[in-house]
Amino acid sequence: MNFPLVSKLIGIVMLILTIAFMICLGVAYGLDSEEVVGTTTLAYYTTIGVSIFGAILFFWIGRTHSKKFFRKEALCTIGLAWILASLIGSMPYVMILEYATLADAIFESTSGLTTTGASVFTNLETFPPSLMFWRCLSQWIGGMGVVVFFVAVLGFIGVGAKMLYANEASGTVSEFEESRIQSTVARLVWVYLGLSIACCLSYWGAGMNWFDAINHTFTTVSTAGFSTRTDSFAAFENPTIEWIAIIFMMLAGLNFLLLLRLVMGKVRFAKRNTEFVAYIIIMVVSSVMVSLYLMLDGTAWDAEHAFRSGTFQVVSIMTTTGFSTEDFAVWSALPQMMLLLLMVIGGCSGSTAGGIKISRLVIAVRLTFVSVERSFRTRVVRQIRLNGNTLSQQAVNEVTAYLVLIGSVICGSIILVSIFETTHEVDTCLSVVYATLFNVGPGIAEVGPSENFGFLHSHTKLFLSLLMVMGRLELYAILALFAPSLWKRFS
Amino acid sequence: MNFPLVSKLIGIVMLILTIAFMICLGVAYGLDSEEVVGTTTLAYYTTIGVSIFGAILFFWIGRTHSKKFFRKEALCTIGLAWILASLIGSMPYVMILEYATLADAIFESTSGLTTTGASVFTNLETFPPSLMFWRCLSQWIGGMGVVVFFVAVLGFIGVGAKMLYANEASGTVSEFEESRIQSTVARLVWVYLGLSIACCLSYWGAGMNWFDAINHTFTTVSTAGFSTRTDSFAAFENPTIEWIAIIFMMLAGLNFLLLLRLVMGKVRFAKRNTEFVAYIIIMVVSSVMVSLYLMLDGTAWDAEHAFRSGTFQVVSIMTTTGFSTEDFAVWSALPQMMLLLLMVIGGCSGSTAGGIKISRLVIAVRLTFVSVERSFRTRVVRQIRLNGNTLSQQAVNEVTAYLVLIGSVICGSIILVSIFETTHEVDTCLSVVYATLFNVGPGIAEVGPSENFGFLHSHTKLFLSLLMVMGRLELYAILALFAPSLWKRFS
Ligand SMILES: [K+]
Ligand SMILES: [K+]
Repeated sequence: MNFPLVSKLIGIVMLILTIAFMICLGVAYGLDSEEVVGTTTLAYYTTIGVSIFGAILFFWIGRTHSKKFFRKEALCTIGLAWILASLIGSMPYVMILEYATLADAIFESTSGLTTTGASVFTNLETFPPSLMFWRCLSQWIGGMGVVVFFVAVLGFIGVGAKMLYANEASGTVSEFEESRIQSTVARLVWVYLGLSIACCLSYWGAGMNWFDAINHTFTTVSTAGFSTRTDSFAAFENPTIEWIAIIFMMLAGLNFLLLLRLVMGKVRFAKRNTEFVAYIIIMVVSSVMVSLYLMLDGTAWDAEHAFRSGTFQVVSIMTTTGFSTEDFAVWSALPQMMLLLLMVIGGCSGSTAGGIKISRLVIAVRLTFVSVERSFRTRVVRQIRLNGNTLSQQAVNEVTAYLVLIGSVICGSIILVSIFETTHEVDTCLSVVYATLFNVGPGIAEVGPSENFGFLHSHTKLFLSLLMVMGRLELYAILALFAPSLWKRFS
Repeated sequence: MNFPLVSKLIGIVMLILTIAFMICLGVAYGLDSEEVVGTTTLAYYTTIGVSIFGAILFFWIGRTHSKKFFRKEALCTIGLAWILASLIGSMPYVMILEYATLADAIFESTSGLTTTGASVFTNLETFPPSLMFWRCLSQWIGGMGVVVFFVAVLGFIGVGAKMLYANEASGTVSEFEESRIQSTVARLVWVYLGLSIACCLSYWGAGMNWFDAINHTFTTVSTAGFSTRTDSFAAFENPTIEWIAIIFMMLAGLNFLLLLRLVMGKVRFAKRNTEFVAYIIIMVVSSVMVSLYLMLDGTAWDAEHAFRSGTFQVVSIMTTTGFSTEDFAVWSALPQMMLLLLMVIGGCSGSTAGGIKISRLVIAVRLTFVSVERSFRTRVVRQIRLNGNTLSQQAVNEVTAYLVLIGSVICGSIILVSIFETTHEVDTCLSVVYATLFNVGPGIAEVGPSENFGFLHSHTKLFLSLLMVMGRLELYAILALFAPSLWKRFS
């Protein structure tokens, strides 16, 4: 393990946090009311102090580092970076909200930086504007982190992420040189920024004020789902705003490398991209089914209203954003089950969405067909293809290992949550695990869109925080931290 | 496809059914009351007629067959045999019970022959004794079918079942010649018969009458779970009988090849058998946890009562038998979740139990540890071992493919059940799928042990019948029937 280099990289993350808190400080001086501005500015000064101290400390530890950077350094860096950032990010909540416990603050902060969007707080309207701003900004930073890390780091280390590059002419990750990764990362950041600006202008044009527009942009393009309103998008009662949110959530659930190509005018890539096609088909079919249910199930809505509400909920859940305009926790079994499955499926690989990702789903479905045929024709060899490329046996094995792993994590987590929350129902325990591990935000049952996670035990909140980070980093970066062999200095 | 040979084998199954119905006819003449004996004997004469006709027809079609017998013939035979037997077995229900619909009868018959034990009927005490006898006998025949087919056929075709033989010195299935399989099958039938006789004598000795003892033996050694009483084992209020049931359920959940070796005095095999050790550990830990919950959760039971009830429910669910002495559907989330997970896990491979089987669980758990380590040490190669043998990559791939497949089947089934049962809760839909696909019988929520499946729509009942057969035959034998390439005459 190259500890100095890991330390230096974490120092960079601390530096980014420092800048973020400075912006929050500016917002506090500009917008917070006189009664609270003393408390809020004190909170941000303290947090800035801590993160600057952290940045200096980690840079100092990493002052002499070798260039040796492998998978273990990469996994360790992103795992520790997300955990540390979540802890520091919790400070404003603890210092500004008198009623917030440490577990509450850590949960909310982790939920922000992992773009989950599950909340333990109610009455968001009573928050000082600067804290509301930090809450949403943390999701935007988290989303940017995912876009950058998954290309730069996971693309490099290749943990089940090789499929990201399956469209490239070269087809293999090893041919990506450092400079090429750097230029790709820079371009992706521009796509993320461009998407944010377009989203913000659209929200503002449709009638949001600047503060709401900026905050909702932060949480839309990162498919994260925090809102400045307790009622989420239902509070605006504005169909145009809802359609805008649908479009930008849908875009943010796409593979950012594909989005980059589309922006560069290479439209033909999209047609050959199995994941893109499957994403659109699943989204359209689910939207139509849920919309039909809403029209026929006695709501007495007109077609536009039903179609808009159905599509909004489907797109929001499938991209694991978690905004809501309807309380789907009161719907009947079929639409609820569909939403639960869409949570599991999630968006495209290389997006800010959670879930197991469409590409893995496609591979899993193709694998089941192959395995049925192989049960009676053992000598037939069938290759599994994705995005026009044949996958190696090792790539398929990585996907199945991931699926088995996430199945085990889900089962173990449900058992643990059931132990902490003995008084709650089976579907609540199941739902909190899904909603956090897949970075969705709201679940069904007692954690539906009109509810929040505040009633849970603090043990549960801390455990769910860990699940959020685990889900965000595709499990391996956190699980590897528990593997003793990761920490050996030389190996 | 060698149609004549498949036809001849199905003819043999028809012949076995004929013999079974003749026994039921004898029971009807001996035990049924005068009011119903006319109806019941007519029903059995008709059913005997149909199955004899079927036997003759299939033997005639198969009169000239080649010896060519491969995987596709084997899968096709067991798939069709179970479906046909379930259809013929439904005739007595339709003809004897006036209120039974065709869907009810098919569900009950399939539930019997697949050793599932889910029921659509209440007030079993009003059944004519001969019908009660057929209901339980069908499970015993189904259990025997599983023991025989999984060794003779699945052992031969090797669909994920090679691990059955992992203890053998040879290690590979291909070295099993026909004669050796035949002698093993004969021995296994003796073990099954011996277990049945021991179980029956124990029940009788503990105070059951002969009729109850025989019927409960049929459904205990096949881990099937039908009872002659609506209240299942709770009706007897006899702790000794409950402990006897616990022991025989536990034995029937073991690999029958291992059981055979234990009977032959080769005890050292058990110690080296990972599956056996894991089975015992999971069973003991779960029993203790559930028993502690029962003691501490305000039941005011003494330790023996709590330990007996906890162990009974755990063993019954884990071996997917489905007997009950307590209504676990009213327990809180933790013990319910544990029971749901135990349903999924199931018993040992090569037993009559359902679920994904312990050996697959062990492989999945080991695979997750390996995949976490591989995420940062790509060049490290770790073999996955089971029962002292190293598994080939292909064997591991078969297990992961099976797990992905069963995950897909579960998701698809839940969606379909939600479409049929729009008015029911998420946990009911989930629970009926688990209870039938894993051949458990009772589930939680609205299909708990004190409830039954009668309220479901007939579409759901027929679909669940298919799921029971699919689960019983480890998916492939039924899914393969839907693959067009299975039906090609030459390939
Ligand atoms: K989210
Ligand atoms: K059963």
